[in-house]
Amino acid sequence: MNDSRFSRRGLIGAGLAAAGAGVGAVAGVAGSAAATGVDPFTADANGDESIDLSQSVPFYATAARQPQGGIRTTPQRHCVFMVFDLTASTATELQVLLARWSAAIAQLQAGRTIGSVEPAHGDGVGADTGEALDLGPASLTVTVGLGPGVFDERFGLAAKRPAHLAAIPALPSDTLDEQLTGGDLSLQACADDPQVAYHAVRDLARMARGTATVRWTVIGFGRASAGPTQSTPRNLMGFKDGTRNITTDDEYDRFVWLDDDAGWMAGGSYQVVRKIRMNLETWDADVVSDQQRVFGRTKVEGAPLSGGSEHTAPDFHARAPHGTEGGTAIDARSHVALAAHENNGGVKILRRGYNYTDGLNQYGQLDAGLLFAAYVNDPEHFTTLQRKLGASDRLNEYVSHIGSGVFAVPPAPRKGSYVGEQLFH
Amino acid sequence: MNDSRFSRRGLIGAGLAAAGAGVGAVAGVAGSAAATGVDPFTADANGDESIDLSQSVPFYATAARQPQGGIRTTPQRHCVFMVFDLTASTATELQVLLARWSAAIAQLQAGRTIGSVEPAHGDGVGADTGEALDLGPASLTVTVGLGPGVFDERFGLAAKRPAHLAAIPALPSDTLDEQLTGGDLSLQACADDPQVAYHAVRDLARMARGTATVRWTVIGFGRASAGPTQSTPRNLMGFKDGTRNITTDDEYDRFVWLDDDAGWMAGGSYQVVRKIRMNLETWDADVVSDQQRVFGRTKVEGAPLSGGSEHTAPDFHARAPHGTEGGTAIDARSHVALAAHENNGGVKILRRGYNYTDGLNQYGQLDAGLLFAAYVNDPEHFTTLQRKLGASDRLNEYVSHIGSGVFAVPPAPRKGSYVGEQLFH
Repeated sequence: MNDSRFSRRGLIGAGLAAAGAGVGAVAGVAGSAAATGVDPFTADANGDESIDLSQSVPFYATAARQPQGGIRTTPQRHCVFMVFDLTASTATELQVLLARWSAAIAQLQAGRTIGSVEPAHGDGVGADTGEALDLGPASLTVTVGLGPGVFDERFGLAAKRPAHLAAIPALPSDTLDEQLTGGDLSLQACADDPQVAYHAVRDLARMARGTATVRWTVIGFGRASAGPTQSTPRNLMGFKDGTRNITTDDEYDRFVWLDDDAGWMAGGSYQVVRKIRMNLETWDADVVSDQQRVFGRTKVEGAPLSGGSEHTAPDFHARAPHGTEGGTAIDARSHVALAAHENNGGVKILRRGYNYTDGLNQYGQLDAGLLFAAYVNDPEHFTTLQRKLGASDRLNEYVSHIGSGVFAVPPAPRKGSYVGEQLFH
Repeated sequence: MNDSRFSRRGLIGAGLAAAGAGVGAVAGVAGSAAATGVDPFTADANGDESIDLSQSVPFYATAARQPQGGIRTTPQRHCVFMVFDLTASTATELQVLLARWSAAIAQLQAGRTIGSVEPAHGDGVGADTGEALDLGPASLTVTVGLGPGVFDERFGLAAKRPAHLAAIPALPSDTLDEQLTGGDLSLQACADDPQVAYHAVRDLARMARGTATVRWTVIGFGRASAGPTQSTPRNLMGFKDGTRNITTDDEYDRFVWLDDDAGWMAGGSYQVVRKIRMNLETWDADVVSDQQRVFGRTKVEGAPLSGGSEHTAPDFHARAPHGTEGGTAIDARSHVALAAHENNGGVKILRRGYNYTDGLNQYGQLDAGLLFAAYVNDPEHFTTLQRKLGASDRLNEYVSHIGSGVFAVPPAPRKGSYVGEQLFH
């Protein structure tokens, strides 16, 4: 357990390239240790893995244009995502909420409560609900996003609207539930302990009372596999997911972070979130050869059907004797072919996803799927890709996009400031 | 991290006594390392904690009257509980299901798949859905329970009915949802990784097709705190829960395991399960002094209101100047007073609970609570206690029992046999 506790999981993913939407990355290789200086994972020579729950991720920026945590941070094992509608009528109320949230998140990420759990003599309501006491920071990050509604006529902030922030348009094969779509503010709380993530969102929601109401939420989990040679996590369809995700500084700069042209948003990003239901019982009844054709990869190894191993680049021109659209080894309507950057003008999106399990649906079938988040410097990159996937992807038979939201994610604040402060100058 | 990795969390709970139903233990101290020889937890001198996900719990018994795992096993961090209705019409079909389940569970607990994920050339449906590949056993246990319906007129097994197995009667303040109540078979899958637990239940449910249908499910989590001196987990109300749980061999023998009088069930137990919704938003608005009166303990430390520290025995006769029912420091209608073995003829029940979070309810409020399981050698011990709690407990204002089930849990099978084989002789 000890010899290699400093070998960093984040580095395992180095060299992977990225592309793919629809059903995207489940945790895993999206981050790099360098981004935060924190990597709670350790692995021994046998691939056994354990998590150090005493790790904490700093909230405040120490340099200009530094992103919030939870984007490049090595994906933690649990995520609670919550979307709010603003009920406030003035910019000042929004300002106060963002300032209070920021101060609270800084405390939570350090593993502290956000105030007294037990006021003197028990008189008064606790500032913190207490269920994460003694649990440690567990690498918690809470990422704050601002939806299009923040910049509508209500708050006088239209002039500050981030250039590419607009509601995601209707896309082919959308089956969106209005109650799981849209919203003015988002919180993405990720941690290596589910109670730490839930506590954070619960107590932040509590602070929002009178200013914002909860609109929708998704609670997810995911983890990379145990072996250092097989680090890509699997989605609930049993396939590795995230093999070609973004990893390098250059890719982050080109596809994720907003540059100085973005003004007050420089160093920030856009967050596109989809709740994607998987029809698991139908999927489970499909023969594996067809499942492989749908993804364009083998199930166990994750190798492209054009040959090689997991990290071999797919060859979309390799021929196959029969049985695929286009006569190629990788079906032209497979998920990997449609999503690949080679087939999308070089565009990549950073995917950060978690599996969710909502119990049973009204038919007594498993209600589960993927909480999919993409971080992009232009939401149009997602929209373009999903328009294509929604029209043609063989995976569409087995998935439904039931929730959707888009949010601008400002850069991290400096100490003494708060997320989005530049909005109010 | 290393010096004390052999210090066993299970031993931290030694010396704690047990009692309490309604809102019971959340994971934590219910097990002891000695029961399974497995303890995946390690803690260093600072209380940092990590989990070894390569640990596995044996499924087959190596001695007579050995219980199934998941009862005394040190509580793992995640749980998927699922209840089934039998659609089969013959005892043979039930027999085949129990035999297939047992063989599969033995594989899963060893960290193996339950058959091919990728059949040769991909032809055919996979026997295993694959999403737990490479994840390791993560201390998985799957506990199989038999509901009252197994012994009704359908299968000719009435003569084998365990002596104390009968549907839980209506109890005071029940608000049961029919769709979350009853059932013929139960699976309790606990593991230190949520995907491992979910995969197990999903694939076992798949094996049941044509023999049983899914009736209800609850997905939960919980974990003990980080510090070796504060090992009792907290429920979502923020209070430590499980301080007085059963821990000693003597208590297990007296209150949990069935003895030789139980015939083929000797070494088994009864599982009483309740899905308990917590009205968190109401709870969070209550002053902490009242919350403490409800539980009879302080919030942060968990000390009885009669004084001392967490593990000090409560003094139910200690007087208080004002403000409580009965004029005692510990309110006579507090949860701890009503549930204590001192006030229940010495009876204790083993509690094994997990927090659940179901997102939002129809009012946009947090939908969350406790998956409560009690293991008892007579379900009447639970019923008696809950009848009292349901009538008087101050906690009733904040919780609703919405689901309920009772199951006989046979002892573990020997290798070559399966759970419940003795039913079919």
